[in-house]
Amino acid sequence: MFMHNKRLQYTVRVSEPNPKLACMLLEQFGGADGELAAAMRYFTQGLGEDDAGRKDMLLDIATEELSHLEVIGSIVAMLNKGAKAQLSEAQADEAELYAMVGQSGTSAKEALLFGCGPALIDSAGVPWTAAYVDSRSEPTVDLRSNIAAEARAKIVYERLINITDDPGIKEALGFLMTREIAHQKSFEKALYAIDENFPSGKLPGMEEYASLYVNSSQGIGDVDGPWNSGPNWDRDDGPTPALDGGPGTATVAMDADDEELAEALILRTQSATSGDPITGADLGAGPGAGRTTELG
Amino acid sequence: MFMHNKRLQYTVRVSEPNPKLACMLLEQFGGADGELAAAMRYFTQGLGEDDAGRKDMLLDIATEELSHLEVIGSIVAMLNKGAKAQLSEAQADEAELYAMVGQSGTSAKEALLFGCGPALIDSAGVPWTAAYVDSRSEPTVDLRSNIAAEARAKIVYERLINITDDPGIKEALGFLMTREIAHQKSFEKALYAIDENFPSGKLPGMEEYASLYVNSSQGIGDVDGPWNSGPNWDRDDGPTPALDGGPGTATVAMDADDEELAEALILRTQSATSGDPITGADLGAGPGAGRTTELG
Amino acid sequence: MFMHNKRLQYTVRVSEPNPKLACMLLEQFGGADGELAAAMRYFTQGLGEDDAGRKDMLLDIATEELSHLEVIGSIVAMLNKGAKAQLSEAQADEAELYAMVGQSGTSAKEALLFGCGPALIDSAGVPWTAAYVDSRSEPTVDLRSNIAAEARAKIVYERLINITDDPGIKEALGFLMTREIAHQKSFEKALYAIDENFPSGKLPGMEEYASLYVNSSQGIGDVDGPWNSGPNWDRDDGPTPALDGGPGTATVAMDADDEELAEALILRTQSATSGDPITGADLGAGPGAGRTTELG
Amino acid sequence: MFMHNKRLQYTVRVSEPNPKLACMLLEQFGGADGELAAAMRYFTQGLGEDDAGRKDMLLDIATEELSHLEVIGSIVAMLNKGAKAQLSEAQADEAELYAMVGQSGTSAKEALLFGCGPALIDSAGVPWTAAYVDSRSEPTVDLRSNIAAEARAKIVYERLINITDDPGIKEALGFLMTREIAHQKSFEKALYAIDENFPSGKLPGMEEYASLYVNSSQGIGDVDGPWNSGPNWDRDDGPTPALDGGPGTATVAMDADDEELAEALILRTQSATSGDPITGADLGAGPGAGRTTELG
Amino acid sequence: MFMHNKRLQYTVRVSEPNPKLACMLLEQFGGADGELAAAMRYFTQGLGEDDAGRKDMLLDIATEELSHLEVIGSIVAMLNKGAKAQLSEAQADEAELYAMVGQSGTSAKEALLFGCGPALIDSAGVPWTAAYVDSRSEPTVDLRSNIAAEARAKIVYERLINITDDPGIKEALGFLMTREIAHQKSFEKALYAIDENFPSGKLPGMEEYASLYVNSSQGIGDVDGPWNSGPNWDRDDGPTPALDGGPGTATVAMDADDEELAEALILRTQSATSGDPITGADLGAGPGAGRTTELG
Amino acid sequence: MFMHNKRLQYTVRVSEPNPKLACMLLEQFGGADGELAAAMRYFTQGLGEDDAGRKDMLLDIATEELSHLEVIGSIVAMLNKGAKAQLSEAQADEAELYAMVGQSGTSAKEALLFGCGPALIDSAGVPWTAAYVDSRSEPTVDLRSNIAAEARAKIVYERLINITDDPGIKEALGFLMTREIAHQKSFEKALYAIDENFPSGKLPGMEEYASLYVNSSQGIGDVDGPWNSGPNWDRDDGPTPALDGGPGTATVAMDADDEELAEALILRTQSATSGDPITGADLGAGPGAGRTTELG
Repeated sequence: MFMHNKRLQYTVRVSEPNPKLACMLLEQFGGADGELAAAMRYFTQGLGEDDAGRKDMLLDIATEELSHLEVIGSIVAMLNKGAKAQLSEAQADEAELYAMVGQSGTSAKEALLFGCGPALIDSAGVPWTAAYVDSRSEPTVDLRSNIAAEARAKIVYERLINITDDPGIKEALGFLMTREIAHQKSFEKALYAIDENFPSGKLPGMEEYASLYVNSSQGIGDVDGPWNSGPNWDRDDGPTPALDGGPGTATVAMDADDEELAEALILRTQSATSGDPITGADLGAGPGAGRTTELG
Repeated sequence: MFMHNKRLQYTVRVSEPNPKLACMLLEQFGGADGELAAAMRYFTQGLGEDDAGRKDMLLDIATEELSHLEVIGSIVAMLNKGAKAQLSEAQADEAELYAMVGQSGTSAKEALLFGCGPALIDSAGVPWTAAYVDSRSEPTVDLRSNIAAEARAKIVYERLINITDDPGIKEALGFLMTREIAHQKSFEKALYAIDENFPSGKLPGMEEYASLYVNSSQGIGDVDGPWNSGPNWDRDDGPTPALDGGPGTATVAMDADDEELAEALILRTQSATSGDPITGADLGAGPGAGRTTELG
Repeated sequence: MFMHNKRLQYTVRVSEPNPKLACMLLEQFGGADGELAAAMRYFTQGLGEDDAGRKDMLLDIATEELSHLEVIGSIVAMLNKGAKAQLSEAQADEAELYAMVGQSGTSAKEALLFGCGPALIDSAGVPWTAAYVDSRSEPTVDLRSNIAAEARAKIVYERLINITDDPGIKEALGFLMTREIAHQKSFEKALYAIDENFPSGKLPGMEEYASLYVNSSQGIGDVDGPWNSGPNWDRDDGPTPALDGGPGTATVAMDADDEELAEALILRTQSATSGDPITGADLGAGPGAGRTTELG
Repeated sequence: MFMHNKRLQYTVRVSEPNPKLACMLLEQFGGADGELAAAMRYFTQGLGEDDAGRKDMLLDIATEELSHLEVIGSIVAMLNKGAKAQLSEAQADEAELYAMVGQSGTSAKEALLFGCGPALIDSAGVPWTAAYVDSRSEPTVDLRSNIAAEARAKIVYERLINITDDPGIKEALGFLMTREIAHQKSFEKALYAIDENFPSGKLPGMEEYASLYVNSSQGIGDVDGPWNSGPNWDRDDGPTPALDGGPGTATVAMDADDEELAEALILRTQSATSGDPITGADLGAGPGAGRTTELG
Repeated sequence: MFMHNKRLQYTVRVSEPNPKLACMLLEQFGGADGELAAAMRYFTQGLGEDDAGRKDMLLDIATEELSHLEVIGSIVAMLNKGAKAQLSEAQADEAELYAMVGQSGTSAKEALLFGCGPALIDSAGVPWTAAYVDSRSEPTVDLRSNIAAEARAKIVYERLINITDDPGIKEALGFLMTREIAHQKSFEKALYAIDENFPSGKLPGMEEYASLYVNSSQGIGDVDGPWNSGPNWDRDDGPTPALDGGPGTATVAMDADDEELAEALILRTQSATSGDPITGADLGAGPGAGRTTELG
Repeated sequence: MFMHNKRLQYTVRVSEPNPKLACMLLEQFGGADGELAAAMRYFTQGLGEDDAGRKDMLLDIATEELSHLEVIGSIVAMLNKGAKAQLSEAQADEAELYAMVGQSGTSAKEALLFGCGPALIDSAGVPWTAAYVDSRSEPTVDLRSNIAAEARAKIVYERLINITDDPGIKEALGFLMTREIAHQKSFEKALYAIDENFPSGKLPGMEEYASLYVNSSQGIGDVDGPWNSGPNWDRDDGPTPALDGGPGTATVAMDADDEELAEALILRTQSATSGDPITGADLGAGPGAGRTTELG
């Protein structure tokens, strides 16, 4: 069960309103690597988890991410506070409001639709979608996804810190960025606390293809490195179709009725390979083309 | 700041695993009227709210909705617990797993992609989207949206209760349904505690159109009621284009350059209204049509 | 069956082209609270409705909303008329077109993809989705959703009126805003013409939880009001996990086979709680870390 | 301005309720090639069109498609009428409702969320999106898109006719399918009534590449036909990178500061090509791997 | 099987970095008519195609479109190269980065989330969706969709060429635009190489409605043309509901139980047509309205 | 530049048609962890990459993933071959087609909309979205995302292998699963070939919060492990709001005008905390409630 305390996990001090910066910060509120995505990734994993240790960790971190959602949303609310009052009380003149609201499509939507409230959209105004949440109910998979997600969130915070010079915002973003580092460390420890965590799952894979590197992209710029060369790797430098040695075709055994129907379908819809049919493009390609012309 | 206690707000006792029912219950986990939508609707409003009373109420209810998300997700996890173990340990035979997983597209996605963990999708497998969240930063608007949202969530729970006979699930769903009733009551009180809450916002509307009923759909089935007839209402029974008395056209004043270009565009792309051009459909309509024919 | 008259319901007089303003107005064409959402909300309800009076009202208002979609779309077309001609006839020089088109991501998409035609996107360029339509086939629910939707549309029009000083646009938007007020009044009358419209549906709820207020958010800023205090309300101020008095856990009865598999799953994937495993982050944290190092 | 008559464009006589069939028919209500997509494709084109003839045609057909949306939605409502009453009045027992509702994810969502009302989702339960609408404001483009859209809608109706034996539904679907044929004919005539409709737009293309066929897919199954061979076509059978005769690289001229930063970025993040670093996978690959091991 | 050569199909020479232009070009990378949509449209058709000639053509062109995706993506990468280095190395000061990143919502998302890499979003920052792909597995349908898609892509390239004056970009876009012309020609030839390609599919349609034009939109602006008049067309100028001569109603035969339940549903939820109920809007409409008032 | 050979990378031998299984396999064709997501993840990274070794590797693997997309799509085409012919030639009777098509919402959409061709949807019928692609243009981030993505794809293949007993499909899926293992190994090597790859980016984080574990979820089930305890970790067991020692509030400095407007907004919209207003719910809660009642 969740409880809430109206104090934030980190104090937010914003120097002055700035609705444009607010729109950029929405990336971490309602964006792909934002705090809602983080909270929901760990919360859904925690609900389905049966290992007591991981369940506890996932719920700890999910709950903290909700607190971070609150911090970032509170910064957005502060940055928008003047714009919200101006727009709803309509004391600014229209030209000023038009300029402020119209800075970008996101600021327009933020103001016109959401009334300058913190909205679960990203910095381009796209609504958050659970398609961002990649929980898969296999811990050696999910922990790797969590490690990657924390790394992604860290770099987005770093970029946001790089574009603002408001010291209070920089500090709060610095805190949030740092927490992603700490969370990544927790997930790493939990992953490597699982014996034999690679490959994930139970099935081992086919030995002849598990250490094969397929050199699909050739020409200028081919480079050898530990990821494709050396004693760890077999190579397919052709590359060769049908690595299995078969014909590389796709086949299915159908019963006679289906075979007959499939044949009928082909016949009914075949494109003739001979001749040169007049086409719609031919009709439309020239002066007067296609106008009141008799078909031969 | 959020905190969490690992006990649920309501005890969940599930009689037996049932992954198909789990998929139906996802409607209230990751669906349009589900608990995440509720939590995020009130949480985003609460973050942007400056009225202390409403802020408190919105954060209270947002937090409780997160606890409800946990309850419904826990039911889903229990209903899926056997399926999850069977699928990941692969001790059932393939035909059994195929039958269980393949009951519907949702159960396939729930099992294959999400490994039977509670996923933020609805009962058809569609990911949750923040497009469901209709917070607009105007309290007389948002409270009405909240009232409607609680009514919607209530009826979806009622339908779920109607389709299951597991007593523990019926009881937990009954609790969740009841809380929507209580929340609706809170939002109603908060709305009517605002003086002059109708119409929302500051602008009053144009008097001549504010009590006009436009009878746009005619013929069989026209009915009079308090929503369109009586002393409250003027009527437009035509209905009449251009209620303003103007020509009902759309016009814009352009400068001469633009006028000229717009004219050029029309000329370049006009469809001739005379003649009977041969078309692609003509070419394709008959036996041998379009084949190696000379253009006239 | 629908019919159409080429005159608009309200005459549109636009002072001058302004593609940036056009993009903002798209919020009410293809946005969440725009006219398509309104028309489709009422139309889908009307199709499924069996009460003759409500069916008539829903189809009346749905049809009028389509006429409003036409009005707002016509304003957009007028605002874009110069830009469309310039872009397609390419008589402006590239730098001018680049500046006009590139004002925001929305204006870029409006021009480049949609050729400055009215597109069913919102002010941030996000395509309209039927996820905005919250028809639920229960009239006491749907009418509340309609009331809320009209309030939302009203405030978005108010905001648009606040940001433009083109008198013809202000007037047409004023008309559209006013009609939302009238529609809200119709839906209110139809809702309260249903006896016992609260709570929605047939199931009454569990009495012990229907008037309980759960004080989930605590600390600074707790406020009493008619929505949480007084004779209408019981209180849970803890708040208490497991309001039902049970353990607050989630359980399911599985058969022995499933129990065994579930146990095997836990064992196979458990994260050890003792020891301090080296992790990927450890490998990557220092100078030279992880390079050609022997595993112990 | 739109008007409505409560009689349908075509009489709908459904033999018996069938909620599963209703879900399949939703493909043409809220699906990619359904009637809303058709109506909105032509309506948005009509609003932006300045050629009087095409504008009239587009609004005629857009309006008729709305009438078709009403016909298909009315069939859905009839097929669902029993299910809707059973679910909302809850007079069937739970097991019956569970079986009916749970036939697929779509039927679950149709019943639980939409209460068996006609919803703007497709046959898989995915909400309609304006991403289906491909209006581009260039008539020689849009008319081709319309021709294709009518052909698509025609084939989906044909498939629906093939799977149902309810004579009243077959007849109504036959009517709707036939109207797509008629509409396609109108759009074809309007396209070929434009002189020089190919290629679309004003720019002619680079002559050396406009009749070149690039044989990118080789090996078994290469076939000659009028689409790639004969006097109309030049051939690139290599195929050859850098058809322009250049190096086939991508370059940009940057100033010295940017060059230096770009170099720094490369250096900071380069993956060493020598050595064989221990990885997370190495740590996790074996028994006891990664557990309390010392880094070398 | 796919192979890759690191040389591009067309050499890309960009004059100088320009992240704003990069965002506009994303329209053809991750937009509705962009190269991924093209590649996936033809690739999915090719995989399911059994006619050897069309399969070959579809895979040829699908593969080439992937090469075009690479060309357009490479232009984007070049335009962003300076911005990427500045943002990640953070050597520019914050105000400069803020100005560059904040030009629009798209540029913000491109920089903050995607780090200036080519992302599968359109010019407004909306992620690519397979809803753009309209393959329908019927060649006379799919080839028409392909013809239309090529025409759409051609016009978007033309617009992009119109807004930039970088000669290297103009040239590469000209090449890509030209290839759309060539592809359209191939698809036209393949379509008209199918005998009797209109109407698509096998079912012929109902003769009485296949040449009927329904004049749904009336009043000012009605125009006759070959698309609605002349010997090819019958006319319905009313237009008339229930073209079939029936009552234009929708009916279903239900069993007695369902009839009874449906009746009960109507009764339970009917809106009374007499009386004038007080509503929520009435309560909220005036000064002091709704405050501590007794219900009569 | 891409090239194609019509032989597959692995031979596909399907025992018999099975459209339901085809729908499940779509998870790896158009699903979140499917081959298109993989190909596009690496392809977009490769385009933007300036390190020669990683660029080569990313393009190698992206290209191979396209070949895998072809393999999985070919299996789908084979499984659907009979259904496609039956549906389009309509030689099966309607009841048989209805049963086959109607197995689930996905099979309905696959057949009715896509005509049984391989479609870029997942196993629930949801279209593929680029929101699945998490490329972020920072190699130490992207490589971690790639490692996680390969682990996810591996487990989904394992689940698919567990539910089918067709030996040819099992073998091809086994190949595809194995290749994910090999790719994960390549990405791991490339990550650890970067010195100091943790934390990602350049900013180090705030030391006092980088090793702090916040115990947000308390009560039953708290567990110590290497992820939250021991010498690596500081602990916040309260947990404590405002870790920074400040008040935990959010503030912004506004100018006097904005302050005044913000105050006006609060006053205009405040919900009174005293009194007990009659609400809409009160009106609707009882028999005869709200009917023709006088307001006091």
